[in-house]
Amino acid sequence: MEKYKKADRNELLAEIQSVKAEYEQWCSRGLKLDMSRGKPGPDQMDLSTNLFELVNPELGYENKSGIDCRNYGGLDGLVELKVIFSDIMQVAPEQVIVGGNSSLNMMFDTVAQAMTHGFGDKPWMLQGKIKFICPVPGYDRHFAICEYFGIEMISVQYKDNGPDMDIVEELVKDPTVKGMWCVPKYTNPDGIVYSDETIKRIAALKPAAKDFRVFCDNAYAVHYLTEKEDSILSIYDECVKAGNPDLVIIFASTSKITFPGAGVAAEAASPANVATIKNRMSFQTIGPDKLNQLRHARMFTDMDKIHEHMKLHSKILRLKFDIVLNELDKSLTDLGIATWTKPNGGYFISLYVTPGCAKRTIELCRNAGLILTPAGATYPYGKDPQDSNIRIAPTYPLPNELANASSLLCTSVKLAVLEKLLESNN
Amino acid sequence: MEKYKKADRNELLAEIQSVKAEYEQWCSRGLKLDMSRGKPGPDQMDLSTNLFELVNPELGYENKSGIDCRNYGGLDGLVELKVIFSDIMQVAPEQVIVGGNSSLNMMFDTVAQAMTHGFGDKPWMLQGKIKFICPVPGYDRHFAICEYFGIEMISVQYKDNGPDMDIVEELVKDPTVKGMWCVPKYTNPDGIVYSDETIKRIAALKPAAKDFRVFCDNAYAVHYLTEKEDSILSIYDECVKAGNPDLVIIFASTSKITFPGAGVAAEAASPANVATIKNRMSFQTIGPDKLNQLRHARMFTDMDKIHEHMKLHSKILRLKFDIVLNELDKSLTDLGIATWTKPNGGYFISLYVTPGCAKRTIELCRNAGLILTPAGATYPYGKDPQDSNIRIAPTYPLPNELANASSLLCTSVKLAVLEKLLESNN
Repeated sequence: MEKYKKADRNELLAEIQSVKAEYEQWCSRGLKLDMSRGKPGPDQMDLSTNLFELVNPELGYENKSGIDCRNYGGLDGLVELKVIFSDIMQVAPEQVIVGGNSSLNMMFDTVAQAMTHGFGDKPWMLQGKIKFICPVPGYDRHFAICEYFGIEMISVQYKDNGPDMDIVEELVKDPTVKGMWCVPKYTNPDGIVYSDETIKRIAALKPAAKDFRVFCDNAYAVHYLTEKEDSILSIYDECVKAGNPDLVIIFASTSKITFPGAGVAAEAASPANVATIKNRMSFQTIGPDKLNQLRHARMFTDMDKIHEHMKLHSKILRLKFDIVLNELDKSLTDLGIATWTKPNGGYFISLYVTPGCAKRTIELCRNAGLILTPAGATYPYGKDPQDSNIRIAPTYPLPNELANASSLLCTSVKLAVLEKLLESNN
Repeated sequence: MEKYKKADRNELLAEIQSVKAEYEQWCSRGLKLDMSRGKPGPDQMDLSTNLFELVNPELGYENKSGIDCRNYGGLDGLVELKVIFSDIMQVAPEQVIVGGNSSLNMMFDTVAQAMTHGFGDKPWMLQGKIKFICPVPGYDRHFAICEYFGIEMISVQYKDNGPDMDIVEELVKDPTVKGMWCVPKYTNPDGIVYSDETIKRIAALKPAAKDFRVFCDNAYAVHYLTEKEDSILSIYDECVKAGNPDLVIIFASTSKITFPGAGVAAEAASPANVATIKNRMSFQTIGPDKLNQLRHARMFTDMDKIHEHMKLHSKILRLKFDIVLNELDKSLTDLGIATWTKPNGGYFISLYVTPGCAKRTIELCRNAGLILTPAGATYPYGKDPQDSNIRIAPTYPLPNELANASSLLCTSVKLAVLEKLLESNN
C-alpha cells in the first residue's frame, strides 16, 4: 500500500511523466474552482428561505415578551433565542447573550475587552507578553485574533480525542498563559470530537493566571454529516463541578444553520463573566438586530426544529463530502503518500500529504484553477511545521465542480510528492 | 416676563400652594409616561414596513455587484449603500464602510482600536492619561465610551454655531488631548447646527497629538423638523482643503430613518483611516449582515427616496414637538424661570431651568409617573455644573401622552423653582 515509497527511480520517472500529462490536461481546461472556505452553498441557504416570511405587519414585530423588535434596546437579545442557544451551548438560558450576525465578532470583542479591561485582574495589555494555547491544526481566524492583539501562540497538537491535555496542563502553570482556543465538536479542520475525559480535564485546569479563559467556539454543535450524532459533555457544567465556573466562554451561531452573513450569534458563560461582558456591551451598543433574531425565533420554535433543519443540510453535505472522499480513496489509497479524515460532522476534510508537500500541492492546484486554503493556515502564524496539512472545504462548490476539484487535487498531490521523491532521490 | 423673580414671599407662598395642588392632581392620575430617550415611535417605524418585502426568493439575494448577500464576505458593505451614505456623510463612496445595525458600535470599536493599536502612533492605552474634548451639552453615550476607556473628558460649552472654537484651539495644543466628539447637525440635545466657520476651524485644527481624531457623529444628517433644511459644509472636504485629511472620522446610520434596532450604520474617513479601520475589521468579522443592507439598498435607490421618506417622519414629529413647545410657551414663558430650544431638526427639545432646579424637576416628574433623561446626562460624568439642563425626547409617546407629559413637566418646573426661591428667600 505504499506504491510510491517502494518504487525505484525509473518507476518514479515513468510515473511522474504520466501524472504530469494528467496535470497538464487539468491546466488546459481553464477551471475556476474554490474549495478554500467553509461556506455553505446556495442550495443550503435555500433551506432557510422561509425566514423572510416570518417578520411582516401581519405577524407583527413583538416577541413573546412583548418587545417591539424594531426599536432600540434588548442588549442581550430575545429570550426565545436564549432558550434555543442554551440547548446548543449546554448552559442555562439566562447565561446566554444573543448578539448580531457574527460569533467571530463576539470572540474578538471579548478578547479585546480582556486586553483593555481584563477579566478580574489587570488589563491583559498592561501585563506584558501574554500567551494563548492553540490546539493545532485549528481555525485560522482564531489565530488571527491572537495575532492582531500581539498574543503569543503556543501550538499544542490535537490527538484523536482533543488537545494533548498532558501538555496543556503543563502550559497553564505559566502565569503569562491567559487563554486557550477550543472547538469541542468537529474541530476545524480535523473533525475531532472532544472526549468526556478531555472536557473534564479542561474544566479541571488550575491555571496560574486567575484571568485565564478557555474560548470555546462550538461552531459545529449540531452540524452532523452522518446518522451518528456525536454528543459532548457540557463544558460549562463540568467547569462548575470542578469549581471553575468562570473558566470557559462559549460561542455559537446560526451562520451554518441559516445564513452565513445574516444569521444570529451567541455567547455564554458563568453569571460573573456574563455580567462583565454585558457591562462592556452596555457601552458598546444599544442592542442587536432583534428583527433578525425574531425571524430566527419564529423559525426555530424548539430544538427539534433545529435538528430537522440540520438533517436537510446534512443530506446536501453528505453527498459533497462523499464525492471528495471517494476520489481520495480511489486515487491515493494505494500510494502511501497521504492520509485524510472521514468526519462525522463539521465543514472540512483534513488531508495530510507527505511532509514538505502541502505548499507545493496547493500551488499546483492554484496554477490549474483550484483555490485551496493556503498552506499553513491551520497553524499559528500560518506555519505548518510539517508542511503537510491541507484543509479541504467541500461545501460550496457544485457536485460536478467538486468531482473535478478533487480529481485535480489528487493529481496535484501525486505530482508534488513525486517531485519531492525524485529530488531527494537525485 | 419674570413673574416669579419679581414676586414677594407672600405671592410665592400663594403660588406654591396652587402649583402643589396642580402637582398632586398629576400624582393622583397614576401616569406612566416616558420622555427619556430619543426613540422613534411605532408610527414612524410603520413608515418602513415596505423593507420586509424587499428580500425574498422572487427578488433574489444579489446586489448590483452580483454578491449573494446571504453568504459570508463583503467586509465593508454593499456598494449601493456606500453611495447613499456618501451623500449623507459628504465623502466619496469608496471612503464609506457600511456595517451592522449600530453606529454607536462603530464609534466604540474605533475608539477601542485606538486604545489597543493607536492611529499611527503608540496605542492610546500605552500613552498614559489621555483626554477628549466633549462639547456640552452632548450625547451621554459618547461620554460613556470615554468613561469606559478611562479617557478624561474636558467639557467645552456649545455656542449657537457649534463648540466654542477659541477654547478647542487652545486645548488641542496639549498632546494628551487625543479626540473630540462632534454632532455637526442638530446636536443632541440643543439642536445646534455647526456654522461654516465652525467646520472650517475644526478642519484646520493643528493638534499637538498626531493621533488626534474628531469623532463626528452625523446622527441627524437628514432629520429635519421644518421646511427649512439646514445644510452644513462637508467636514471631510474642509479637512482635505486644510491639509488634514486624517483628522476626522464620520459616523451615521439609518436607525432613525428605518428601524432603530435594525437599521444600517456606516463610518467614513480618509483613505488612510479607512485602511486602518478595515484592517482591524478583517480580524474582527467576516462581514456585516448584507441581507439587511440589501433591503435598505432596494428601498432607498437614491437620495430623493431618503428625503421623501424623511418628510413623512418630519410630519409625525413636527406634531409632537409642537405639543411640547406649545405647552412650554403657554405655561412657562411669562415666569422667567426657563428657556428652551425650538430646533429645526434632530430628536430633542433642550430645556434650561433656573440653575439648581433640573434634578428636582426630574425627580418631581418621576414621582408623578413621568420618566425624563436623568439630570446631568448631557454632561461628562453625568454632572451638569449648573444643574439646569433637561433633555426632552418628544418622539416616542403618543400625542395625548405628550400633552400630559409636557403639562406635568411644566408643573414640576414651577414647583421645583418655587421650592428653591422660597428656600433662598427663607
